[in-house]
Order: sequence, then C-alpha cells, then structure tokens
Amino acid sequence: MNLKLIFRVLGFLSLVEGIAMLLALAVSVVFGEHDITAFIISSGISVLAGGLILLLTKNASRDIGKREGFIIVSFAWIIFSFFGSLPYIFSGSIPNFTDAFFETISGFTTTGSSILADIEALPHGILFWRSLTQWLGGMGIIVLSLAILPVFGIGGMQLFMAEVPGPTPDKISPRIRQTAKTLWIIYLGFTVAETLLLWIGGMTFYDAICHSFTTMATGGFSTKQASIAHWNSPFIQYIIVLFMFFAGTNFTLSYIALKGKVGRVLKDEEFKYYSLFILGFTAVIFLGLVLSTSLGVEQAFRDALFQVVSIITTTGFATSDYLLWPPILTILIFVLFFFGGSAGSTGGGIKIMRIVILFKNSYYELRRMIHPKAVIPVKFNKHSVDAKIVTNVLAFFMLYFIIFGFSVVIFTFIEPDLDSAMGAVATCLGNIGPGLGRVGPAENFAHVAPAGKWFLSFLMLLGRLELFTVLVLFSPTFWKE
Amino acid sequence: MNLKLIFRVLGFLSLVEGIAMLLALAVSVVFGEHDITAFIISSGISVLAGGLILLLTKNASRDIGKREGFIIVSFAWIIFSFFGSLPYIFSGSIPNFTDAFFETISGFTTTGSSILADIEALPHGILFWRSLTQWLGGMGIIVLSLAILPVFGIGGMQLFMAEVPGPTPDKISPRIRQTAKTLWIIYLGFTVAETLLLWIGGMTFYDAICHSFTTMATGGFSTKQASIAHWNSPFIQYIIVLFMFFAGTNFTLSYIALKGKVGRVLKDEEFKYYSLFILGFTAVIFLGLVLSTSLGVEQAFRDALFQVVSIITTTGFATSDYLLWPPILTILIFVLFFFGGSAGSTGGGIKIMRIVILFKNSYYELRRMIHPKAVIPVKFNKHSVDAKIVTNVLAFFMLYFIIFGFSVVIFTFIEPDLDSAMGAVATCLGNIGPGLGRVGPAENFAHVAPAGKWFLSFLMLLGRLELFTVLVLFSPTFWKE
Repeated sequence: MNLKLIFRVLGFLSLVEGIAMLLALAVSVVFGEHDITAFIISSGISVLAGGLILLLTKNASRDIGKREGFIIVSFAWIIFSFFGSLPYIFSGSIPNFTDAFFETISGFTTTGSSILADIEALPHGILFWRSLTQWLGGMGIIVLSLAILPVFGIGGMQLFMAEVPGPTPDKISPRIRQTAKTLWIIYLGFTVAETLLLWIGGMTFYDAICHSFTTMATGGFSTKQASIAHWNSPFIQYIIVLFMFFAGTNFTLSYIALKGKVGRVLKDEEFKYYSLFILGFTAVIFLGLVLSTSLGVEQAFRDALFQVVSIITTTGFATSDYLLWPPILTILIFVLFFFGGSAGSTGGGIKIMRIVILFKNSYYELRRMIHPKAVIPVKFNKHSVDAKIVTNVLAFFMLYFIIFGFSVVIFTFIEPDLDSAMGAVATCLGNIGPGLGRVGPAENFAHVAPAGKWFLSFLMLLGRLELFTVLVLFSPTFWKE
Repeated sequence: MNLKLIFRVLGFLSLVEGIAMLLALAVSVVFGEHDITAFIISSGISVLAGGLILLLTKNASRDIGKREGFIIVSFAWIIFSFFGSLPYIFSGSIPNFTDAFFETISGFTTTGSSILADIEALPHGILFWRSLTQWLGGMGIIVLSLAILPVFGIGGMQLFMAEVPGPTPDKISPRIRQTAKTLWIIYLGFTVAETLLLWIGGMTFYDAICHSFTTMATGGFSTKQASIAHWNSPFIQYIIVLFMFFAGTNFTLSYIALKGKVGRVLKDEEFKYYSLFILGFTAVIFLGLVLSTSLGVEQAFRDALFQVVSIITTTGFATSDYLLWPPILTILIFVLFFFGGSAGSTGGGIKIMRIVILFKNSYYELRRMIHPKAVIPVKFNKHSVDAKIVTNVLAFFMLYFIIFGFSVVIFTFIEPDLDSAMGAVATCLGNIGPGLGRVGPAENFAHVAPAGKWFLSFLMLLGRLELFTVLVLFSPTFWKE
C-alpha cells in the first residue's frame, strides 16, 4: 500500500479546496459581511495543511494501484467535507461540528439535505460556499465516473459509450486530463448559460449563480428557505427544470449533442427511458393534481413536472410540497426516490441504466424459461451486455436494497416514525435532499439526533460513490496483501 | 398447443377435488350440521364437470411440452379455487362469490388471509374444508417443486440437491410418481404426528387435525378467530412452532434426516441460514419485548419465537399482535415478510436459498472489484453456482420487488393507507396471511373492496407459483409458435 501517495493526493485536494474557498471569500468581501475572517482562517488552514502534507510526501513513489485508488476516492469526499465545514463553524453560521459536517457532506455529495431552518439569515459568502460545495462535488463525480474510472476499467458503464476508447497504459494520464477538460468545459458552459437565463428571468445575479451551481450538480441547495417556490415565476421554474434535465443526462451525450450529433443522442436507450420515465410520471401526477386539487392546468403541469424532474435527477429543489398531495401521488414521488439520474451525470440514486438493465433481464428471464437452451443476453443500445455487467448491476441493486432496509431498521431507533425513517434513508442514500414525514420538503434535518446525522452522512457518501467503492474498504480481501 | 390434454388434466384435477370434498362431507355428517347438502352439491358439480371433461378429451394425445405444463400449473390453482369456493357459497357461509373465491385461493395458495370476521360461527364441515384446501395446496406445491419441475429441468433449485438424479426421458413418469409418493408419506407422517401431539396437548381431535393441516401447509387458517392465541398453552404453541419449522424446511432434507443422516442436514447451507435467521430475529425481538413490555421472560421468548417462525415460514398463525409491539419490532417482522421458507418446503415468499445467493453474490462482487480478472463464482453447499442460476435468482428478486412496488401503488387506490397497502400486498405475494394496519393479525380482509380482493387473489397465485410460471403466460414469446 503506497500510503505516502495517498496522503499526497489528499493533501493536494485540501490545498485545492483551500484555494476554492477564496472564491467564497471574494463574495463575502463584495457583500462586506462578517464571514470574511472565517474564510481567511478556513482557507489558511486547508492550504497550510495541504501544503505541509505535500512537502512531507515529496518523495512518494508514483506507483498507484486499484487499492490506493479506492482509498483516495472515499477519503477525498471525507477530507473535503471536513475542511469544508470550517467556514460554517468559524463564521458561527453552524457552530456545532456535527451539523456543519452534515451540511458540508450533504453539499459535496450533491445531496442537498439541510439542517438550516432560516437560510436567509446566513451571510452571502457562506451561502455561496454552500452552493459551491455542491458544484465542486458534481464536477468531481463526473470527472471520476467519466474520465478516471473508465480509464482504469472500473465501473463497467463506460462500455456502452463508444466515444471512450480503451486506455493504452502509457497514455492514461493525458487521456484523463483531456476527457476531464472537455467535461469541465461542458459543465462550466451549462452553468454559465443557466446563470444568465435565471438572471434574465429575474433572479439577482448572486442567486442565479448559486442556483446554477446547485442545479448542474443536481444538488438542490437553495439560498432561500422556500427553495424555488420563492420565485413564483414560471420562466425561472421551467429554466431550472431544463437544466436539471441536462444535469441528469450523461455528460458524454451532452458532448455528442454539442458536436451536432443530436440524432445519436435521441437514439440512446438510457436517454430514451430517462425521458420516458419523466413524461410518464409527470403525466400521471399532473392528472392526479388536476382531478384532486383546485390548481390551474398550467400550474398543475408545472408542479408535477418540476417535482418529478427534481426527484428523478436527485436534485431536490421544491416548488410544491408533495407531502400535501393526495397520498397516491406522494407514493409515486417516493417510487422515484429509487430511480436516479443517468450514468455519467451528476445525479445519484440507482440510475436509469441500471433500472433498464434490471427490467430487461427480468423480462428476458421469462424468455429463457421458455427456451432454456437458448443464450439470451440482455441488449442495450443494440449491443449484448456482458454477463459480468448484469451480475454487477444486480449485485448493486441488491446491495442498495439491503442497505436501505437495514438502515431503515437502524434509523427507526433514532426516528421512530416509519415514514420519516424511510424518507431520510432513501433521500440520503439516493443523494436527493428532501424526504418524507418529519424530513419532508418543508422540513429540515436539524431535529435529527447527532448519531442520526452521522449515520445519514455515511449513507450520503455510500450512495454518492455507488456503494462498492466505499464498501470494498470494509472487505477483508481488500486489506490482504 | 395440446389444448385437449390441458383440459384433460384440469378435468382430472377437478374430479380429484370433488372426491376430496367427500372428506369434508364426512365431517359435516359426523357433526350433523346444515352444510351437508352444500358438500353433496359441490362435490357433485366438481365430479360431474371433471368426469364430463375426461370423457370429452378421451382421445387427447399424450404429447406434453413445457408450454402445456406452464398453463396447466397456473390453471390448476385457479380451477381448484373456483370449484373449492362452491361449498362456502352453497352453505351460505360466504354467500358472496368474490369473498368465497378469495377465501379459497387464500387456502389453496397456503396464504391464509381471510375475510371471515366470526370464524367460530361456521359449521365444522366448512372449516374442515377450509383447512383441507391449505393442506392440499401445500401438498401440491411440494410435489410440483420437488417431483415434477426438477424432472423437467425447470426451477434450477434442484441442482443443489444431490439426491435428485437427472431424468432419463423414458423414466420421467415413474420417477415423478416415486418422488411424489415419498414426499406424500413424509407430509402425511408429519401431519399425523402433529395431530396426535396437539390432541395430547389439549386441543379437540377436530381442531388438532385442522391445525395440523394448516401448519404443514404453512397456510395459517385457524378454526378460531383468535388463531393460536385461543389456546394459552405453551405446549401447544411450542408444538406448532416445531412443525411450522419442519414445514418451512426443504422436504428433501426431512427425507434425508428420516433416513438417519441428520449430520448431512445440519451441514446444509440453506438449513443453516434458515435456522440462523430464526434465532437472530427471535433473539432481537425477545430482547425488545423484555425491555419494552411487562411480559414474563418465557412468554416474551415464546411470543417472539412463535411470531418469527410463523412469518418466516409464511404460515401466518398468531399468538400475539405484532402491531401492538414497539414500532421497531413491528418493522423487523415486516422485514421477515420478504424472507420466506426454504426451497422445496411448503413456505412461500422469496425463500432462504435465494436470499443467501443474493447476499453472497453482492458480497462476492466486492471481491470481483478488487480482482476484476479472477472468476469468482458464488458457492453454495460447496458447489459453484452456475451463472445462469444466479441471473435467474436475481431476476426473480427484481421482479418480486417490481411487482411489490407497482402493486402497492395500484393498491393505494383501493386502500389509501400506505401501511395497510404495503402489508396487504406483501402478505399476499408472500403467501403469509396477516399484514399491517387495517389487515393486521387482529383484523381481516372483509372490508377490502371487491376489485382489491381480486387483485390480491392474483398476487397470491403469482407468489405461490414463484412469479415466472404465471408471468410467462403474459409473454408474447410464449404464444408464438
């Protein structure tokens, strides 16, 4: 185990985070609020700690294996969340460490669950930092899933994307850098476009940036306690729907579309099902709202569409409290908790591609029963899916539900109400944001006991890194030489 | 499609059912109650209908393929439930056809969900018939899963049992007959033994037979509204626990044990996990009951053990209302709704073997992530499990949860309370009996709307025949030549 290199990478990341804090510092300077010193101290600590580690590990060998990779990835999110919580603490915005850590890991994992009960009371710099944690977390996850993991052959999902050629050992590093750069430009481009549109729509420039950050990351933090419901503007709400939709799409597809090959994108099976699920759920909920409430047709459609896209992409913005809808519609939304964005998007959850493969495999199993001797592989985008990938997808799904089930049982010790426990666990594991019951869209997580907050923080990490990456660290095989 | 043969087999089965009704007739003659005519008419109709069909299909070819097999199996349960509901209707015990059909299919699928609100008011013959439907259904399912399906190579589970040799085409029929006979003797032997023990324990001979029928079938119908809680006798309750445990064990293992090879049984992995799950859940619930209630230690242990064994084996007898326990213990019981008995037992649900294979596959996937080039098959009873079986098990699990999820959504239209909907769907799909909320152990299904009763009847059938057998009938491939 090349521990030195692990420390070196983590040190480098905390240095980067310290520098990112300077952006938030700039915001608090512009607004001239009391959080200036908090950012100076926090940034200083992160940069110094990072710099010191870099100095101490100067002679680290560059040998990096899979095991080092797993450790770095899991700890990157933990280290980021640790240093990232400092501004909350030093500014007194969230004086309690447990709460500050919860809020920060909820940011970096792009979950969006919050312990804040009066968001508007916080200084602009702090809320900017809060949005920025999500944007960085979103960026981190697409670089990880589309640039780094495929090159190392981990994940399996990349096999469906012809655009990503296999790695040649001596070209790993330039290849990663190239892909990461492309992704970064697309991500930044979307963010800029959304910022401008929201600004035009009537948001302040500050709010526009913050919400673009958290939209593109499918994070869902807002600068307003009422979330997007604060702006009763159809234009703003539809713009956010559009960009949540983009953020929940595989960024490789966005790249292909931007190169003009829109036809290819429309033929992509995951994209088709992603759009289909959104349309289907929206249609049913729209109908339900029209029949059971006094909402106007446009409002009912917008409420349905916004909430469906917000939950399926695991963003978690709200314009309507789905807990106040008729129970059947609330349950439909809860079903969406177990969908998630596309593979290679910033969305969390189980992911559309996995859902589709699982559905297909179950359906094909019926055919296999009728023709037991025929080899009937699952097809995706017209290619046969390797049996290993199917097994991996199924193992993921199973693990997801085992973890969900066990966590609900454990969490009921902390939150005895079953709805709230299921909602809290599902929303954190799926990196969504709001849950059910006492952690619904109009509520927050402040009242959850400290042990519960740590537990949910762990679930957010587990969900964000797609279970396996974190869980292998608990496997004895992993630590055997 | 050899339709004639299908009709012939179904005709034969209704003839058999008509003859079985004579047993219930004998009981009503002994007790001299008003249901005598109902049984004469019902038996007459079943025998005549069956006989007529047999006559009309005399020249049916004996060509039977897989497709005929699937149709026969699904329709056997439907035909049985149709004719089996006649005694309820003609005796006036359950005058409504929907209710009578629900009660009968709940019997033949060994589910045990009931629409009766005053069981003791019914004549002895009818309640005997009600218990007998379960006993016949239990017998049917073990013969199907251990004698018939393995010989045709369907199911896959038989591969783990070395005792069942592969079929030689010309010996299929004698082989099925031999295995079925052995199973029948064991099943009957257990039933006789339990009857005697319950009789010794203080039940009337009549109650002892009825409860032995429904224990060995893991059915759970009782002749008392209060179920087993009616007898506040530890001896009776422990005897029933013991025989529920036997009924939830693979009958091939019982056969091996009866041949004296107890050591081999104890080494069987499914048996080990089955015992382990029971011990684990009992221990936790026992502790919970001791800490949170004023029950004595023995009573708490007995209540915990009884309810755990009753639910995991999908029997559904009750000696304590788990809805009145602390919520966390109720949730643990609900988790058990998704376990089920062993493969080759009369228990329903997902089954221990599948659960274990799923757990193992997920755990092995972690190892596969660390050593992506190594082939790491799932092992069960020291043998590698074929990848096809793993895929089948995973497809089953996925289907089970898709069906559960969709059914809950559909069912909330009928029963808007989420707990009740989840409970009703889970208990019927798992062939258990009692659910949660308004269909808990102290309640019944009478208040469910007719559409809901038909829907739950379908779920019972789906669960009992392990999904695929019924679902293939809905697959277009199945009907293509």
